[in-house]
Amino acid sequence: MNLNDQMTELARQAKEASRELAKLTTAEKNACLLAMAEALEKNVEALKYANADDMELGAKINLSAAMMDRLKLDDKRIAAMAQGLREVAALPDPVGRLLDERIRPNGLKLQKISTPIGVVVIIYESRPNVTADAASLCFKSGNATILRGGKEALNSNQLIAQIMIEAGRKVVAHFPEHAIQVVSVTEREAIPALLSLTQYVDLCMPRGGEGLIRAVTECSKVPVIKHYKGVCHVYVAAEADLKMAEAIVMNAKVQRPGVCNAAETLLVDKAIAGQFLPVIGARLFEKHVELRCDGTSHAILQPLLAQFKSARLKLAVEQDYFTEYNDYVLNVRVAANVQAAIDHINYYGSAHSDSIVTRNEAVAKQFLAEVDSAAVYWNASTRFTDGGEFGMGAEIGISTDKIGARGPMGLEELTSYKWLGIGTGQIRG
Amino acid sequence: MNLNDQMTELARQAKEASRELAKLTTAEKNACLLAMAEALEKNVEALKYANADDMELGAKINLSAAMMDRLKLDDKRIAAMAQGLREVAALPDPVGRLLDERIRPNGLKLQKISTPIGVVVIIYESRPNVTADAASLCFKSGNATILRGGKEALNSNQLIAQIMIEAGRKVVAHFPEHAIQVVSVTEREAIPALLSLTQYVDLCMPRGGEGLIRAVTECSKVPVIKHYKGVCHVYVAAEADLKMAEAIVMNAKVQRPGVCNAAETLLVDKAIAGQFLPVIGARLFEKHVELRCDGTSHAILQPLLAQFKSARLKLAVEQDYFTEYNDYVLNVRVAANVQAAIDHINYYGSAHSDSIVTRNEAVAKQFLAEVDSAAVYWNASTRFTDGGEFGMGAEIGISTDKIGARGPMGLEELTSYKWLGIGTGQIRG
Repeated sequence: MNLNDQMTELARQAKEASRELAKLTTAEKNACLLAMAEALEKNVEALKYANADDMELGAKINLSAAMMDRLKLDDKRIAAMAQGLREVAALPDPVGRLLDERIRPNGLKLQKISTPIGVVVIIYESRPNVTADAASLCFKSGNATILRGGKEALNSNQLIAQIMIEAGRKVVAHFPEHAIQVVSVTEREAIPALLSLTQYVDLCMPRGGEGLIRAVTECSKVPVIKHYKGVCHVYVAAEADLKMAEAIVMNAKVQRPGVCNAAETLLVDKAIAGQFLPVIGARLFEKHVELRCDGTSHAILQPLLAQFKSARLKLAVEQDYFTEYNDYVLNVRVAANVQAAIDHINYYGSAHSDSIVTRNEAVAKQFLAEVDSAAVYWNASTRFTDGGEFGMGAEIGISTDKIGARGPMGLEELTSYKWLGIGTGQIRG
Repeated sequence: MNLNDQMTELARQAKEASRELAKLTTAEKNACLLAMAEALEKNVEALKYANADDMELGAKINLSAAMMDRLKLDDKRIAAMAQGLREVAALPDPVGRLLDERIRPNGLKLQKISTPIGVVVIIYESRPNVTADAASLCFKSGNATILRGGKEALNSNQLIAQIMIEAGRKVVAHFPEHAIQVVSVTEREAIPALLSLTQYVDLCMPRGGEGLIRAVTECSKVPVIKHYKGVCHVYVAAEADLKMAEAIVMNAKVQRPGVCNAAETLLVDKAIAGQFLPVIGARLFEKHVELRCDGTSHAILQPLLAQFKSARLKLAVEQDYFTEYNDYVLNVRVAANVQAAIDHINYYGSAHSDSIVTRNEAVAKQFLAEVDSAAVYWNASTRFTDGGEFGMGAEIGISTDKIGARGPMGLEELTSYKWLGIGTGQIRG
């Protein structure tokens, strides 16, 4: 079979499986998830063995130490995957919710009901635990999954999917074996082939860096919900509580710099820049954060170098404002007022998570209304944009798109809906 | 300026306008809509004059009589456009609705709030009244619109947009003049150029035939919500009230055959085919409906030809089951049971609107659950899939997609959402 035929067959089987999946009861789905969790735990040695092959390949192709670490499956990570499945089992079923109900003057009852989406393609990079997380969330929401992970994680990913499927089949005799599929073709061409199959594939979610997202967006003919970079901002306004601002900026930048909801740019109102920047600058330098500054903030921060001799203080170039560092680097810019801060964020940001610190409610409300991002905070850290923190229980990622889902995507965001019209013979006049 | 630069400038201006639009109050938006309605009425002669140019071009390029009729603007149609704007003004503002609210254990208050989408591109065929309808719905929901109608309607479309903008500017001094734009470039290449601008364009909605939808889906790099064909079904089950079934089938097929929610295929359960088909066949032949049948139904219907000598009775070919006739033609097929009917619909249908007629609740529930369409009816006509009939007040179209919106799209379906996080200094631990 050539590549196109292979992908067509894979997607066709996924669509068929999605129809069967949609018929499983909540109890059946939960029993499957618990059995899958147990099966992953029982197969720790087999998983580590498969993963060792991946690690060997990873070493051969000179993956970075960070990438090798992400690739590795150990006892703890396998236990965490199993625990994740149990947590998904414990969450409410997102399918079948009554979203709206109206009885029309002619007596026709309309019900808007949440449904599975159908077939979801997930494209991601090397962490194999994403395989179990994503597959379990899609399974609970009644969707068939086609998973395309990094080629260096293929053995691990395939075994995880196989263990989950086998466990499901032991619990539910009619468990559809193509409910969770890992694309075994490692050629790049597999992606455009798969994402042209509009008759079978209902959604694609790419998670990863700019190159991956761009490649998927360029080629996909099926709907895409992007989980794109986070260029997040904290704006410390003129009337901020500066102690609170200090805590929020530090949390947003250094508590975990490698994640998408960490801040990349600090905007400081010019009214308090002279007072606030030396304080926050010292704290950031203590944590070895490199600062890339506009001229005004650079001039204010420069004297700190006497105290922090090895501190990295630079002038920012424009590209910096567009950059997700995922690292101990922060842009600093002085903003003339809240409008300047909003304009900066809407132009340079990635519409992910942005925060204002201020005591002034009118200014806060303007910021909340006009910043066009998935999550906009007032007096809180950007780091809260997360399915768990939002009370969704688990998330498949953070959508930076506006259509379908925006912000953290939990189980509910993995559903679509349909309208049921229940009549007594109504016809249209 | 070359085509790409022209489209980029158009889209950039639309994005800027969308930021200003989002700041208008409900009262301002409604006042603008009422002024726009009045302005359309005051400019009846100018509109008819511009439309006459379009009609002349239409005649020159040999548009069909039906297309010429769709293109024409007369007093009645202009009055209807104005009336449509007034109805949109009277509808509730879909922006700023509180969709969800939760206070987290750390005291962080999360609010999910409906927002405009941003910049919406609408691609449609010749009816110029769509320009006013679509622009007014997008305007009320705070979105900037880029309209690309048929080239034969360009003069009419441009004048409608210009009249609306000028009326808006008289009411609200800061009305953004690029809130409603008509693409004046008639080259086909304008569409891919526009739909590659992911930084400015948030959504594209193509409305029209298979060719248009396919072309847009193939080239778009921005999210698309398709308003695709309606291959709708009525399934008359074994335990149907046959009088009710007769009324529903007739309504679904002949009340208005040219619209997307009209039925194209009648599925009849084999248990009642011998009884029901001669009755419904006679009624359909009376209305000059051509029937394209499978072997079984053909054999049952053939004797009717003695009575209806000029009736058109044919054997269906497989392609017929995929076809939206928009005409007095109906496929007829005998289904072995409800599962066979569901399988037929999910395979050949366009996931638009499908109906079952039965007294058996269990069978109805299976049909409602398993037919994977935007609207699924039990004992009601497929013709109800419509924004007005659903109580949405007005609609921009019927989505046959599953991401973003499904089924009739009214004002609420033209919004996205964002999360507001209102804190008192919360940081993540």
